[in-house]
Amino acid sequence: MNKTPLRIVPLGGLGEVGRNMMVYEYGDDILVVDSGLMFPENDMLGIDYIIPDMQYLIDRREKVRGIVITHGHEDHTGAIRHLLEQVNAPIYATPLTRGLLEVKLARHGVLQRATLHTVQAGDRVEIGPFKVDFFHVCHSIPDGVGLGIETPQGLIVHSGDYKFDHTPVDGWPSDYGMLAEFADRGVLALLSDSTNAERAGWTPSERVVDAALEDVFTRASGRIIIASFASLISRMQQVANAASRHGRKLAFAGPSMVDNVKIAVKLGYLDLPDGLQVSLDEALNMKDRDVVIMCTGSQGEPTSILGRLSIGAYRQFDIKTGDTVVLSSHPIPGNEENVYRTINRLFERGADVVYEAIAPVHVSGHASQEEMKLLFHLTRPKFFIPIHGELRQLKQHASLAKQVGIREDRIQVIQNGQVVEFLDGEMRLAERVPNSYVFVDGSGVGDVGPAVMREREELARDGVVMVNVPLDYATGRVSREPELITRGFMVAGDADTLMEGMRKKINDTVARANGSARKDLEQAISNYIYSETHRRPMVFVTLSRE
Amino acid sequence: MNKTPLRIVPLGGLGEVGRNMMVYEYGDDILVVDSGLMFPENDMLGIDYIIPDMQYLIDRREKVRGIVITHGHEDHTGAIRHLLEQVNAPIYATPLTRGLLEVKLARHGVLQRATLHTVQAGDRVEIGPFKVDFFHVCHSIPDGVGLGIETPQGLIVHSGDYKFDHTPVDGWPSDYGMLAEFADRGVLALLSDSTNAERAGWTPSERVVDAALEDVFTRASGRIIIASFASLISRMQQVANAASRHGRKLAFAGPSMVDNVKIAVKLGYLDLPDGLQVSLDEALNMKDRDVVIMCTGSQGEPTSILGRLSIGAYRQFDIKTGDTVVLSSHPIPGNEENVYRTINRLFERGADVVYEAIAPVHVSGHASQEEMKLLFHLTRPKFFIPIHGELRQLKQHASLAKQVGIREDRIQVIQNGQVVEFLDGEMRLAERVPNSYVFVDGSGVGDVGPAVMREREELARDGVVMVNVPLDYATGRVSREPELITRGFMVAGDADTLMEGMRKKINDTVARANGSARKDLEQAISNYIYSETHRRPMVFVTLSRE
Repeated sequence: MNKTPLRIVPLGGLGEVGRNMMVYEYGDDILVVDSGLMFPENDMLGIDYIIPDMQYLIDRREKVRGIVITHGHEDHTGAIRHLLEQVNAPIYATPLTRGLLEVKLARHGVLQRATLHTVQAGDRVEIGPFKVDFFHVCHSIPDGVGLGIETPQGLIVHSGDYKFDHTPVDGWPSDYGMLAEFADRGVLALLSDSTNAERAGWTPSERVVDAALEDVFTRASGRIIIASFASLISRMQQVANAASRHGRKLAFAGPSMVDNVKIAVKLGYLDLPDGLQVSLDEALNMKDRDVVIMCTGSQGEPTSILGRLSIGAYRQFDIKTGDTVVLSSHPIPGNEENVYRTINRLFERGADVVYEAIAPVHVSGHASQEEMKLLFHLTRPKFFIPIHGELRQLKQHASLAKQVGIREDRIQVIQNGQVVEFLDGEMRLAERVPNSYVFVDGSGVGDVGPAVMREREELARDGVVMVNVPLDYATGRVSREPELITRGFMVAGDADTLMEGMRKKINDTVARANGSARKDLEQAISNYIYSETHRRPMVFVTLSRE
Repeated sequence: MNKTPLRIVPLGGLGEVGRNMMVYEYGDDILVVDSGLMFPENDMLGIDYIIPDMQYLIDRREKVRGIVITHGHEDHTGAIRHLLEQVNAPIYATPLTRGLLEVKLARHGVLQRATLHTVQAGDRVEIGPFKVDFFHVCHSIPDGVGLGIETPQGLIVHSGDYKFDHTPVDGWPSDYGMLAEFADRGVLALLSDSTNAERAGWTPSERVVDAALEDVFTRASGRIIIASFASLISRMQQVANAASRHGRKLAFAGPSMVDNVKIAVKLGYLDLPDGLQVSLDEALNMKDRDVVIMCTGSQGEPTSILGRLSIGAYRQFDIKTGDTVVLSSHPIPGNEENVYRTINRLFERGADVVYEAIAPVHVSGHASQEEMKLLFHLTRPKFFIPIHGELRQLKQHASLAKQVGIREDRIQVIQNGQVVEFLDGEMRLAERVPNSYVFVDGSGVGDVGPAVMREREELARDGVVMVNVPLDYATGRVSREPELITRGFMVAGDADTLMEGMRKKINDTVARANGSARKDLEQAISNYIYSETHRRPMVFVTLSRE
């Protein structure tokens, strides 16, 4: 009997289980699926982005046989360069995913470090003891795949991000046949995308966006500016199609979008009719009604092109009355304020703004409840582990599984770091491995942790007050005016009387102090400020003896 | 001919036009409608809350004849105590609104400063030259009113927050008759609530929540804990009804909820059958299946009861397996992350969590598009000014008005501070008055402005580095080790090598400096830190000569 369990370890990512990285481990062999980043939440001050804690892999770096990437989105690919610093293993990806990844790795100067293998949806690749079948799935980026991972303990189906779009823009539906074939073979466990587990029904087809765009193009008399994600290739195709139909030229703004267009066209994932594409400069010199401009910033990011357009700070052009701006996106939770603010500002500048709340200019790339149920019936798994979602979404997904008849004791909701083992057709919870996420801030990876974050919060709450107190070397008394610097506390003028009071406190405290004058001073100043303002800035005192 | 225009001035509030305060001005007389607060957005660091800039009223304080409050929510009443510090005028409100307001004013010790008049829906009150008809509206708090304001220039209808609920919990529908009567008299202008202008259809009745609660009560075998707003009296009634039906006792947790229950029961707006209500202590000593607990925190506020329960930090009890927690609310934009985090944590603690995304345990208190159209047809206004919404919502509301046949040149979308004048049946834009919002932080009102906010952002982004450099009095050289303090920058251990490099930079810079050593040092240290870490903490240097 085979006594080596198959181990599954979801890693990283702000409570979204396994979204950014999954580890499949069998004896001395490890297969990594995806290596993505997360964007910081609103209270993660100053953080650029977040990557999974990779300690589990670092400790087992010799075992890693391969890294499979399911699709080209940042939350599945954005941490690969960090992973490659720790682990040397070949990367497997479909052509578009590989193309987008190469652009990213080249930009950071680490492309030569990566060993890349192209796979096609439908291929089978042996990676160590794992026989991996790549099956095509629809998602909001072309060329996405899910995985059938044949292991010595049984067949695991890993859905990746998916939806069942019957009329996808690229005409390539999800691979029902391969899923059914897995069921024939017998699926030990399904691990599938829970993002939309709270959404009833069936996610609308990407085609829905065509009608909404058609409406926009029909009504717009001036320029059309469409903001989306740089990776949303299918949306670019839809915009290109609409532009063709309406005799408008199409320009792309922003380096990431331009790069992705180039690679998608080159690899045949984006079909731009001859003469359709113009440069941004050319577009800006044409008649308004003859152009469409696509750019990034649909999440309201202040530094994005749309963000800068909304405050009149984009170098190349300004929003003007008559422009129609389309936000072809759904606000990621936490971005709502920025998105709505951007929309309001665009209206203020005279644009007509079209966005998800008022027209179906965006659809989700993830399966809703009925699609999830279909996946259960297609694959007929013995066990089910919901992944790719927060706990609330995993719980809903688990409840759907129960509804379609999967036995409750065969459904396991887990958190990141929780190892699940499969042995002899049984599932059990194994240990929890240390697992967290790692902040990337500037060039530092992981040196900013919760303690530093708490200090930033404290600094941000009420600012900082710094006091340098010169003491007379001989008498120990305050020898001249203490120097006061405040930041983020209050405006200088308003603070004058407060400063006066603080100076008095300082003199009194120094006069009374013995030994630890510094701590006494910080406490006294802090208490005085609180009594006067009900605020608690961080207070720092330095003493100099002169 | 009457040459005195009626002037309308929407004030305050983060881009939500007129939500928090509206001024109606005719010659030497002013009527103020509402005086509310706003909660800070995620990037308004350390701010407690925000109130309208009241300078316009302060400059005209002698003219203010009355303050009318439409309903008891914070965003319409929360700034009254600040207004009363500036303006002495009687306040008019319906019984429940007055009761809730009294609790609030008493808590801040300013109740005696207020002159309060009770009005009933249906009353007409003369306030200076304004004859104000109070008409009942349904909203997510009982006893709300809209206003028919008869002015010498014509009749203005001010909807307040409203919905047309045909089966409200208190059995009291909006006053269609009075609206129709306004139309008979002839409505010069309608100013109405735009909150849900992006939502098609008709907002569901509060009754919908009954069915969802019934389902929760039927399935729950342990305790039921329901989080909502402290002011959502109708939800309390619905929970009380469900508790009665299912033989559970009801306890309220948290002072604001307990206070509001007391006043609502006393005034007859909340009907709790004898013996239904128990104290929280009593509830905690009863069998789990015999109790319901209502508390605050449905927006995921970390310091609320639900927020504390979700991290195991509530003094009086803990969440346990078998608890059913209901979030009877909709996340206010900007609160999504906190709400979802709270839900995830409650699941983690073993609770079953029911929330808006998975069951209709909440409905909006604001009209949707079909209700907005009904209001146009009921009142048949000559002019229309959308209020109570962000620009994006006002624009949609304006577009609805056009759809029902209001002439485009009679629709005016305005921003806060934009004065609109009515004279001889015509509408015109007048001046823009200085208008902004005022941050309240601790006991300070308005002393924290954009400059301080930017400093807080900067502090939060990369922290702060403070360096005290002792110089030899005679030689001007660094006399001993400079003192380094960092906060929010990096952890102490990791910073050691960096500190070493900084000390070297300091010595070099001092050696080369002539005169402004301090600015030179700050620049040199800042550049050095950036080159090593790609971060830009705020750097402060103090020099002491010893």
